[in-house]
Amino acid sequence: MSSNGDARYDVVGIGNALVDVIAHADDLFITEHELVKGSMTLVETDRAVQLYRALGSAVEMSGGSAANTMCGVASFGGRAAYVGKVSDDDLGQVFGHDLLAVGVNFRPGAPADGVPTGRCIIVVTPDAQRTMNTYLGVSSLLCPPDLDEATIADGRVLYMEGYLYDRDDAKDAFRTAAAIAHEAGRKVSLTLSDSFCVDRHRDDFLALVSDEVDILFGNDDELCSLYRTESFDHAITEVRQHCQLAVITVGADGSYVVTHDDVVHVPAEPVTRVIDTTGAGDLYAAGFLYGYTQGRDHAGCGRLGSIAAAEVISHVGPRPLVELRTLAS
Amino acid sequence: MSSNGDARYDVVGIGNALVDVIAHADDLFITEHELVKGSMTLVETDRAVQLYRALGSAVEMSGGSAANTMCGVASFGGRAAYVGKVSDDDLGQVFGHDLLAVGVNFRPGAPADGVPTGRCIIVVTPDAQRTMNTYLGVSSLLCPPDLDEATIADGRVLYMEGYLYDRDDAKDAFRTAAAIAHEAGRKVSLTLSDSFCVDRHRDDFLALVSDEVDILFGNDDELCSLYRTESFDHAITEVRQHCQLAVITVGADGSYVVTHDDVVHVPAEPVTRVIDTTGAGDLYAAGFLYGYTQGRDHAGCGRLGSIAAAEVISHVGPRPLVELRTLAS
Repeated sequence: MSSNGDARYDVVGIGNALVDVIAHADDLFITEHELVKGSMTLVETDRAVQLYRALGSAVEMSGGSAANTMCGVASFGGRAAYVGKVSDDDLGQVFGHDLLAVGVNFRPGAPADGVPTGRCIIVVTPDAQRTMNTYLGVSSLLCPPDLDEATIADGRVLYMEGYLYDRDDAKDAFRTAAAIAHEAGRKVSLTLSDSFCVDRHRDDFLALVSDEVDILFGNDDELCSLYRTESFDHAITEVRQHCQLAVITVGADGSYVVTHDDVVHVPAEPVTRVIDTTGAGDLYAAGFLYGYTQGRDHAGCGRLGSIAAAEVISHVGPRPLVELRTLAS
Repeated sequence: MSSNGDARYDVVGIGNALVDVIAHADDLFITEHELVKGSMTLVETDRAVQLYRALGSAVEMSGGSAANTMCGVASFGGRAAYVGKVSDDDLGQVFGHDLLAVGVNFRPGAPADGVPTGRCIIVVTPDAQRTMNTYLGVSSLLCPPDLDEATIADGRVLYMEGYLYDRDDAKDAFRTAAAIAHEAGRKVSLTLSDSFCVDRHRDDFLALVSDEVDILFGNDDELCSLYRTESFDHAITEVRQHCQLAVITVGADGSYVVTHDDVVHVPAEPVTRVIDTTGAGDLYAAGFLYGYTQGRDHAGCGRLGSIAAAEVISHVGPRPLVELRTLAS
């Protein structure tokens, strides 16, 4: 368990700062617009405009994978900070407000003139699956000078999105942040984010996981993609040789907490009706990390993850609508 | 019943174009910030910033009273257009998108440099009441040159918000639009919007109602405020002498459709759980106007109003989440 001495934060997150634009659509929309259901696709301005035009009424709410996770940590009562880049536009203000509103210390990078705040156009289908189309905007310009070293050094666990690996600047920021955290005696965690993202950057991820990541998060697809295997068992065998602690979600089947010596299965929390799976993995990680920084055992950490994921898939939007601490008793 | 010959639109709405910023808070927030529960208060920039800072996580979605009503008309299958002023900022784009997405023809006024799109900070309390704090921004600059005359002349019914009466420019636009509509042989309707708004502009509203309004919408508080009476019966007696058709909602007790010769009571539609009353009056008006333009009788119009209001108070947000036409069979 982590006991890295005194720290101002339990978890410090770094990621792409995005506002979600959430709309419902049927499966026809997915096929007509050649979307890959359940995945995250990076889109440029034209494609973002085209998709948004085609979509029905939308709701805007703050998102961003690691930012969602930090909100979850705060909602459990943990101390969280977040580093990510927004612009001084309406959506950037929304993003900053919503972090501060739940008590996450927001350390924005330096602004970049004329580049808008990033947004993620999320299409939710009747099966509650979310298909994400991300226009990164200024979030992708995150670079080492944007990192608040004191904040990173003052967090027990550093948590970073694999999504950051889609841009070189952010990749540098990622490695710099990991070095700062380790230098300060902290743990470094990574979420693989998306199987296609893993596919695009497999070698980098493999190097990271064996060299710099203490706690790895991901789902079964992402782990199998990382090790280029269709066998989940094989992927588990691989990851336990490369990483101290791997936490792998398997949808309705719950999650596995994998160490060198042990594999603990944690069931999912029951959900009456799944409305929107956006944020499921982010909030699972929030619960796990909160438990981890509180010194709970692996099964207990996983249980908090399951509770948080169950809450967030029960409604539209990627962040909890209730104080997670009230569910964690 | 209206049968004003051919028209491109069933209803044309004019109002303050606003994006809603919706957050939940308890009653303590209302008292601490000296808000008037259930009302709409105009706020300047500083107060808007202060309130927003104090609020928890929020969701952004398009709002604006008359705009919500036009979305409701479209959701029933009616042909609707909307005139209102936004800026070329993120929230202005959101507002325009969400109208077009449901098939409302949006006729924005001319932009005004440096003045942001208006927003309405809505605090929803556990009793499902909404308390609105409106920063009008560019919406308040609506003036006669912003009116698309051809569109207004081409709508069977013109529908305008009493809220417009809070600013002189918009008041001029209001009177100009009514003149265009009447010149084209159309009906002019008005919603009183808010009892405090009526109180601020009572003489203007009284003159309007007797001179220019064919169909008046409001609730019991607003009607009583208009006639400075505490007796709803007295207010009904007054309004039937001044207005061809008055449609007055009375919350869970439904509504009254009042003509010179008749008062028809329409019950409310049952709702399993009231979540957020934002948009209740707007959507009632949508149902009524849709029925009216389809030639339904007053009870039938009121029933569609009740159906639409019931849908919108069953979830967060001021616009329907389902196609209202599917509920109207």
